[in-house]
Amino acid sequence: MPTPPKDHSQPLFVGIDVGGTSIKLGLVSDSGIVLGSTSFSTDANHSPEVAVHETQMAIAALSRQLGVESEQIVAAGLGTPGPMDLRAGLILEPVNLPGWRHYPIRDHLSEAISLPVTFTNDANAAAYGEFWLGSAREYSSLVFFTLGTGVGGGIIIDDFCVEGAHSLGAELGHMRIDTQPNARTCSCGRPGHLEAYASATAVVSRTLEALKTRSSRLNDIRPLTAFAVFSAAEQGDELANAIIEETADFLAKGIDIVSNVIDPQAVLLGGAMTFGGHGSIVGRRFLERIVRQVKDSVFPEISQSMKIDFAQLGSEAGFIGAAGLARVQYRASQIRSTK
Amino acid sequence: MPTPPKDHSQPLFVGIDVGGTSIKLGLVSDSGIVLGSTSFSTDANHSPEVAVHETQMAIAALSRQLGVESEQIVAAGLGTPGPMDLRAGLILEPVNLPGWRHYPIRDHLSEAISLPVTFTNDANAAAYGEFWLGSAREYSSLVFFTLGTGVGGGIIIDDFCVEGAHSLGAELGHMRIDTQPNARTCSCGRPGHLEAYASATAVVSRTLEALKTRSSRLNDIRPLTAFAVFSAAEQGDELANAIIEETADFLAKGIDIVSNVIDPQAVLLGGAMTFGGHGSIVGRRFLERIVRQVKDSVFPEISQSMKIDFAQLGSEAGFIGAAGLARVQYRASQIRSTK
Repeated sequence: MPTPPKDHSQPLFVGIDVGGTSIKLGLVSDSGIVLGSTSFSTDANHSPEVAVHETQMAIAALSRQLGVESEQIVAAGLGTPGPMDLRAGLILEPVNLPGWRHYPIRDHLSEAISLPVTFTNDANAAAYGEFWLGSAREYSSLVFFTLGTGVGGGIIIDDFCVEGAHSLGAELGHMRIDTQPNARTCSCGRPGHLEAYASATAVVSRTLEALKTRSSRLNDIRPLTAFAVFSAAEQGDELANAIIEETADFLAKGIDIVSNVIDPQAVLLGGAMTFGGHGSIVGRRFLERIVRQVKDSVFPEISQSMKIDFAQLGSEAGFIGAAGLARVQYRASQIRSTK
Repeated sequence: MPTPPKDHSQPLFVGIDVGGTSIKLGLVSDSGIVLGSTSFSTDANHSPEVAVHETQMAIAALSRQLGVESEQIVAAGLGTPGPMDLRAGLILEPVNLPGWRHYPIRDHLSEAISLPVTFTNDANAAAYGEFWLGSAREYSSLVFFTLGTGVGGGIIIDDFCVEGAHSLGAELGHMRIDTQPNARTCSCGRPGHLEAYASATAVVSRTLEALKTRSSRLNDIRPLTAFAVFSAAEQGDELANAIIEETADFLAKGIDIVSNVIDPQAVLLGGAMTFGGHGSIVGRRFLERIVRQVKDSVFPEISQSMKIDFAQLGSEAGFIGAAGLARVQYRASQIRSTK
């Protein structure tokens, strides 16, 4: 681990990523070095007040451990699951954190840790993490897909995060990619959305459907997971491979649409479903198939240079990006104060 | 016409909108008053050098006419049809201006008029015009559709224009809205794009197809135009009304997709096909149908407050927006110079 800078000329930022099962946080320097990180579980039954207190304690403990003076930390970034009201600093109705409903987390946390808090959606935070220090660090614009229970997204253009007027920017899982009469129904109740085809949940349900009429080594695996489908494909299972290929084709349709809206330099795939990434044959084949399909459908100018790849920061992307967004806001406030 | 400000405290901006048949230009004040405008034809056979010279002369003449000192004009904005290379300042292969291929228009114009030139796509310029002084002036984010020969687009978020990594940002006509096997083919050669359904060209070809099997007062009108279809609908023609309704449904599909990507405060429809706008019964019904369809398909938070409306600046939007984007860049340079 690199030695943290001791002088006050380099400000530090704390990034906090609130998930349904744990809170991860880390200290990141202005130049993008992750000095250290920690995590603790979020008991869904705990009140958000407890979580705020635990976060405050964790920051203090991590700072002590790293030998960082508290005044070196100049701002905090906080990413949480949606839906949320970013302007008001509220979590609205988080599925996995029922006790946090309408909790003004931004302001309460800010008060507890005596730092300005930049509040963002967890997928946007992860996108910014990859944009700042991950797979997209050499690019100036990024469209990021998180493939997990659902399909989330984040869009970053020149350090600017597309948050949306109702904190619903980059809800890429809810782009309609299928307009056929028999389109699948999304978790949001509407037909044909990408999430209904390419989330881990969708991979499992599409596999279960296919298993009704075809045999596969997956017949014996219950409960079935997207990871098991990827593993079976890696071992040569035909049905699993077909499912993975179709998933690639569905994602390519989503990437095609968003490429014509944003024309980004890079598109990244992250989230639990992709953490294998380049490390598996199936992962590489999955990515290659997506790249091939997208190249066939977008403008030649885009297909010639747009990078499509896996994210690389894994579960650290969220707190890194939250810290990065706090840094962007801190720098903007520095410019304003010198005007 | 308002008296132009005589003091140098209010800078002026010249906006230039290059089209296939004419160049429109106008002088706009820092506070958003259009002091005056002029236009002259672009003979497609003329060289771009001639057009640059004519633009220079037209700015001088307009300034004299308005009693504006040349040093009051601090920057110019230039919108042209794509495809283009915004960073290099080049027009690439404009369909209607064959002699302009790969012409470095930004720098040559800048030299001729001795002003910094902000270069943008014509649809982005029109979007920014509506954002700054038109139908979206009260909103902080806008998705703009131009419905004409093709379907173009512009996306503005907080004064920031989504130009794209290859100057192909907001190519909203090329979002795939139909994935059925019999999807229409777009002018770009790919299937199912919005432009193949909702451009003026598409309205005409869809009407001609329908006329093969159904009768209508449009049977006798040749050449058929989108305007004639709207007029026939206004007069109660059943087939024309069905075509207009379907066009609304196709546009609603495009708006649905882009709403989940951008989550804008406002969506506007502009371009030649909509210049009738609120002025006709069919126009109002067309808009109402789009609003209803979109409300049924987007998140409730978005449908409750997202404005969907016609643009209001008509053919002036382009030069106004070009001037506005020049103003944004000028202000950014002022901030940088005082840092």
